Amino acid sequence: KNIAILAGDGIGPEVTAEAVKALDAIAETFGYQFQYNDALIGAAAIDATGNPFPEATEESCKSADAILFGAIGDPKYDNDPNAKVRPEQGLLKMRKNLGLFANVRPVSSYDALLPISPLKENIIKGTDFVVFRELTGGIYFGEPRGRSEDGNTAFDSCVYSKSEIERIAHLAFKAAMNRRKKLTLVDKANVLATSRLWRETVKDLSSQYPEVELDFMFVDNAAMKIIQNPKDFDVVLTENMFGDIITDEASVISGSLGLLPSASLGLKSSLFEPIHGSYPQAAGKGIANPIGAILSAAMLLEYAFDLKEECQIIKDAVNSALNIGYGTEDIFPDEGKSTSEVGDFISQ
Amino acid sequence: KNIAILAGDGIGPEVTAEAVKALDAIAETFGYQFQYNDALIGAAAIDATGNPFPEATEESCKSADAILFGAIGDPKYDNDPNAKVRPEQGLLKMRKNLGLFANVRPVSSYDALLPISPLKENIIKGTDFVVFRELTGGIYFGEPRGRSEDGNTAFDSCVYSKSEIERIAHLAFKAAMNRRKKLTLVDKANVLATSRLWRETVKDLSSQYPEVELDFMFVDNAAMKIIQNPKDFDVVLTENMFGDIITDEASVISGSLGLLPSASLGLKSSLFEPIHGSYPQAAGKGIANPIGAILSAAMLLEYAFDLKEECQIIKDAVNSALNIGYGTEDIFPDEGKSTSEVGDFISQ
Ligand SMILES: CC(C)[C@H](C(=O)O)[C@@H](O)C(=O)O
Ligand SMILES: CC(C)[C@H](C(=O)O)[C@@H](O)C(=O)O
Repeated sequence: KNIAILAGDGIGPEVTAEAVKALDAIAETFGYQFQYNDALIGAAAIDATGNPFPEATEESCKSADAILFGAIGDPKYDNDPNAKVRPEQGLLKMRKNLGLFANVRPVSSYDALLPISPLKENIIKGTDFVVFRELTGGIYFGEPRGRSEDGNTAFDSCVYSKSEIERIAHLAFKAAMNRRKKLTLVDKANVLATSRLWRETVKDLSSQYPEVELDFMFVDNAAMKIIQNPKDFDVVLTENMFGDIITDEASVISGSLGLLPSASLGLKSSLFEPIHGSYPQAAGKGIANPIGAILSAAMLLEYAFDLKEECQIIKDAVNSALNIGYGTEDIFPDEGKSTSEVGDFISQ
Repeated sequence: KNIAILAGDGIGPEVTAEAVKALDAIAETFGYQFQYNDALIGAAAIDATGNPFPEATEESCKSADAILFGAIGDPKYDNDPNAKVRPEQGLLKMRKNLGLFANVRPVSSYDALLPISPLKENIIKGTDFVVFRELTGGIYFGEPRGRSEDGNTAFDSCVYSKSEIERIAHLAFKAAMNRRKKLTLVDKANVLATSRLWRETVKDLSSQYPEVELDFMFVDNAAMKIIQNPKDFDVVLTENMFGDIITDEASVISGSLGLLPSASLGLKSSLFEPIHGSYPQAAGKGIANPIGAILSAAMLLEYAFDLKEECQIIKDAVNSALNIGYGTEDIFPDEGKSTSEVGDFISQ
């Protein structure tokens, strides 16, 4: 099996290295081999080629059986509104060109980390939901977008078609069938035309999944309910921008953004990445939490290669580490281990 | 002084009645009189006139010195994507026609309510920030919006001009000058053209407020940080949709959405409303929390009439009630008082 490795910027390379360690440990145990191909993306790619998602990288991704991605982003681009090329464009272009329309983000609480969550134990203990975030549409990609000629007005467009909504809604309904059979559509149908199309389309589809209980929630309400009653959620389905916001928000339930993996699925390609960003302040210090990346590798085994047992082995190893308090300083401030120590421990 | 009363739908009338009680108590104590004019809005206005913001209501608002608003929304419209008239249109039209461009939402923790917050005491104790949400622009109003001819595609537009950003940014900078001198702009400048205009415009303005420390935060990150470190925020400035989401989210800090007031300021008019919605399930049961509405009346006294002492008296009365555990069941589940008992107690 052939895996494209896009380590990216900031802490991306450090955490990706630990995820590869975990994959290698699995390969060794089960007697197979993964073939890795490194490719450039983000600020690293701009520096080398002027392009945040170079053609060579796209080729690598397309010929791979799965893609493991680190993080992108560099502060030197963030406050320069006139930068012509930005690392994020590479990420967005990759999602679009590879057709990665469904971003799957599981959220759960870890007993060992209850003390570090800002939320009370009785609120979060037992939380287990998964967010399906649409990833190649909405206001991230809609046209027209840009500036008026005089530069004094800016605009973005949010656009969705029925078929874009249907394909991810089917995945979310199917996931609900394998879980607690509850699906919550998060939208802003009292204001947005696109949200009304989401609501209408998902409601229509629901007759194909009669066992799934479907409910609708406005995004402002959802942002509150995710903190107040996270255990109420099973599968959450939402559009691109709302999904971006509520999944980062939901990371507080686990205790750290550094823990959460994600899968981005398309018809031909699938990509796995921690939900955290490039965290440039931490880059090179050996303090980045590799668990989000390692669990992304676990998702890769399950989703891309259907290796469920192998996936579970990595998850169990992560749990064992957390249970004995072995982790980086973001989750165990008093005795934080280094990125590679944590990777070694989990892969041993 | 002349106050337009727009009680609206669901629990709107009940909580607004208690806010009026508080205003009357103040008027009596200080020996003045407020003149109230009731006007229709929302589903109530649709039922009576077919229009969620009738002209008579607009006239009432324009001739008033301040507007006290309850809530709008009725579930019979929420799941009907084809409803031609919806209550929310009345609210949005009112905001637009009255030019209420700055929605000011203070967020603070209440010591008496620390036990009911889903967040840990050490995280929230001492929180005190205020969100300036732009209210008449962005994706709430941008054109074009709607459906393609075949009905299979929907679109919304997010549009901002420099001057729209500047006028609210000035208010936010001024508020910061009277507070802890910190301003955080929340945006998504790594993806949206409108956010890049926000960032550029606010950065330019900041030279006029050299004492204010300005920082920028992506909305996904802000949604997380508001829960993890709410005490880090002083003044938050953001666009319409992001403000909608993060202020509802932030309500968990206080313990209940029912507690939070807001002011919507324009050049000629100002409107005061609790941030909660019409909560139709609770309507008529006497269980709605009137404190958000009562504190909105307090904001009215301060912002519209410059009656700072009177505003403080209401705030103190609310604090006294909370400190002895006198409140509705959303905040004191074991011995919840009724809406009007709480209003009476605070106004006594
Ligand atoms: C870096 C940014 C463009 C990206 C997004 O908004 O999608 C990130 O926040 C994410 O969630 O993967
Ligand atoms: C009812 C709805 C249109 C409104 C909004 O989104 O602005 C409400 O959520 C609010 O925050 O006042």
